[in-house]
Amino acid sequence: MAGKPSKGLADVVAASTALSDIDGSAGRLFYRGYDINELAGSATFEETAYLLQRGSPPSRGELAGYRGEIAAGRALGKLVTTSLPEIARSQEPMEALRSLVSLASADDPDKDSNEPEANTRKAARLTEAARRGRESPPADPEASVAANFLLQISGTPPSDREAQILDTCLVLHADHTMNASTFAARVCAATLSDMHSAVVAALGTLKGPLHGGANEQVMRGLEVIRNSGGADPVKATATQVLARLRRGEKIMGFGHRVYKTGDPRAAHLRAMSAELGAASGDDTYYRMSQKMAEVVFAEKGLFPNVDFYAATVYHYLRIPTDLFTSVFSVSRMAGWTSHVMEQHADNRLIRPDSEYVGERGLTWTSLDQR
Amino acid sequence: MAGKPSKGLADVVAASTALSDIDGSAGRLFYRGYDINELAGSATFEETAYLLQRGSPPSRGELAGYRGEIAAGRALGKLVTTSLPEIARSQEPMEALRSLVSLASADDPDKDSNEPEANTRKAARLTEAARRGRESPPADPEASVAANFLLQISGTPPSDREAQILDTCLVLHADHTMNASTFAARVCAATLSDMHSAVVAALGTLKGPLHGGANEQVMRGLEVIRNSGGADPVKATATQVLARLRRGEKIMGFGHRVYKTGDPRAAHLRAMSAELGAASGDDTYYRMSQKMAEVVFAEKGLFPNVDFYAATVYHYLRIPTDLFTSVFSVSRMAGWTSHVMEQHADNRLIRPDSEYVGERGLTWTSLDQR
Repeated sequence: MAGKPSKGLADVVAASTALSDIDGSAGRLFYRGYDINELAGSATFEETAYLLQRGSPPSRGELAGYRGEIAAGRALGKLVTTSLPEIARSQEPMEALRSLVSLASADDPDKDSNEPEANTRKAARLTEAARRGRESPPADPEASVAANFLLQISGTPPSDREAQILDTCLVLHADHTMNASTFAARVCAATLSDMHSAVVAALGTLKGPLHGGANEQVMRGLEVIRNSGGADPVKATATQVLARLRRGEKIMGFGHRVYKTGDPRAAHLRAMSAELGAASGDDTYYRMSQKMAEVVFAEKGLFPNVDFYAATVYHYLRIPTDLFTSVFSVSRMAGWTSHVMEQHADNRLIRPDSEYVGERGLTWTSLDQR
Repeated sequence: MAGKPSKGLADVVAASTALSDIDGSAGRLFYRGYDINELAGSATFEETAYLLQRGSPPSRGELAGYRGEIAAGRALGKLVTTSLPEIARSQEPMEALRSLVSLASADDPDKDSNEPEANTRKAARLTEAARRGRESPPADPEASVAANFLLQISGTPPSDREAQILDTCLVLHADHTMNASTFAARVCAATLSDMHSAVVAALGTLKGPLHGGANEQVMRGLEVIRNSGGADPVKATATQVLARLRRGEKIMGFGHRVYKTGDPRAAHLRAMSAELGAASGDDTYYRMSQKMAEVVFAEKGLFPNVDFYAATVYHYLRIPTDLFTSVFSVSRMAGWTSHVMEQHADNRLIRPDSEYVGERGLTWTSLDQR
């Protein structure tokens, strides 16, 4: 095989997409041509998912129909119902989601079709499916994906503002060009495999600590400092982060290969973290985050990325830390399913080359001669 | 984003590997430096899997220990046991495998570790796990992976020669550089996600008709011709294939992007198909295959690939056609798990770029204005 390896495929253009675009030098992100700074706080997650999956913003009637399709995704089929209690007992949330989506294909009326209409319907149902990681109280059919998520993890309905904040978080995470989980979904879909298989591949990929696991690690890092920090956790943050940076350690939640002047999503998340911290009566984690961002920028010139303030926002929304990556997947389901449809619409098998670096010309000997 | 899209990543070197190498112009395939022409018929699948996963051929003692580790993979944990009957009833074999491997992580004692030793143990257990697509009679602890596969799908022990032939098939399919399912596994593992997640991604990718589904389609194509062909199925093959080629249709099982002078695996599979066809007393499907290969070569200059004669070999081994892709996955599990370990050993996130081709500069309007 010829050619030098492009490690990590950095700067290799692997696909064309009309779903999202990043202007890294200006620090801007667009979904189908709309700046997320316009969408955040204006568009709901359901409108955003519709925009990504179906190409343009929904009319009022289209949105009502789409919400009905999403709600249909809440009905659990026999296979999922049979397996759910034992899965909830024995698998971590992201493992459980991976298993449940794999099982859910059995009950999908469109499972045997990759046709655009079938994929569009599956995408709507999967937009709801990602919430099913736990046994939980029944969903409110009138409420949004965000409000139902908060209801089902806590057992009590969230305030309107809490639901609105999580909704904005879901909008901000819905798509992000050719990230690793989206790329895994497209590699899978490009064999003309089905949408559930591609989403299962994406969920397993998002599970990795270098991808979806980062927001959880940000929170755990803050907890460790606060628990060890004595009387002034903000001061302890400065001291401990500085020491870690000087030992050459990486601080999770900072820097991005593409955004050179800051991640536009982080600004929205920071503002929501500040608001929720103040409203909670204990904004310590927010102030620790601010201090951490200040130290990391001064030492390394790195900006917080999407994972950094998402951690404290989810914490203030009382989402258990081990569900943070699941929140990410609820949102990114909109992007993954859209990328699968885009891949199927103009498909070519994705099969790169590899460079062989092992031994050559060996002779096999029988077991007796070894 | 700069750059032109490399559609399908053809000729982009995505990774370095010491596992397998293809010499496309000479029509040769190597596992860790050993020519598969030497391995086919000499090395067992267990020796081949050990070679790939652990780097060199096993001694007698190492092989015995490894077979014990593989056998441990047969024990079904509580989660898999709970879900298996309903999965067997409601999912197709490749969906079922995807679900079962996703569920099996719950019961893997090394599930929380990506350390090389833990991954090595998981790889051995997963080498057995792929057989679990169906409810089946108990495995024979002394028998090979191949013999147990045939025992468990038919309920009766295979002949020594049948087990040996399936064993050689498993050797021939064990790894093949950066194919789509292996690449999906590496994209997943490169987020430092776990081996089960990567294998689940690979299974979903192999499920696609452009990848692992091809051998099944070859058999279904032969069945259609035979069922419609009247008195002389071989002659009907020639007529129908010629007509389809002249209509511009693709015939499954022919051609390969890398092998220009023929797929070395196909020669071994052809010989085994001929042998089994003769032994069965009805070599019609073998003779139809030969005629099909003759016509496709004369018209298109294309050689049979690995999927083509695998179809009739599996048929003569009385493997149900809907399990053909599962046989492929039993074998490729050796390669996938090895690639996951290789990726973890020298990791970098795999995140390519995309080219944005959609609309720009749109302005979001509220729902009332749409």
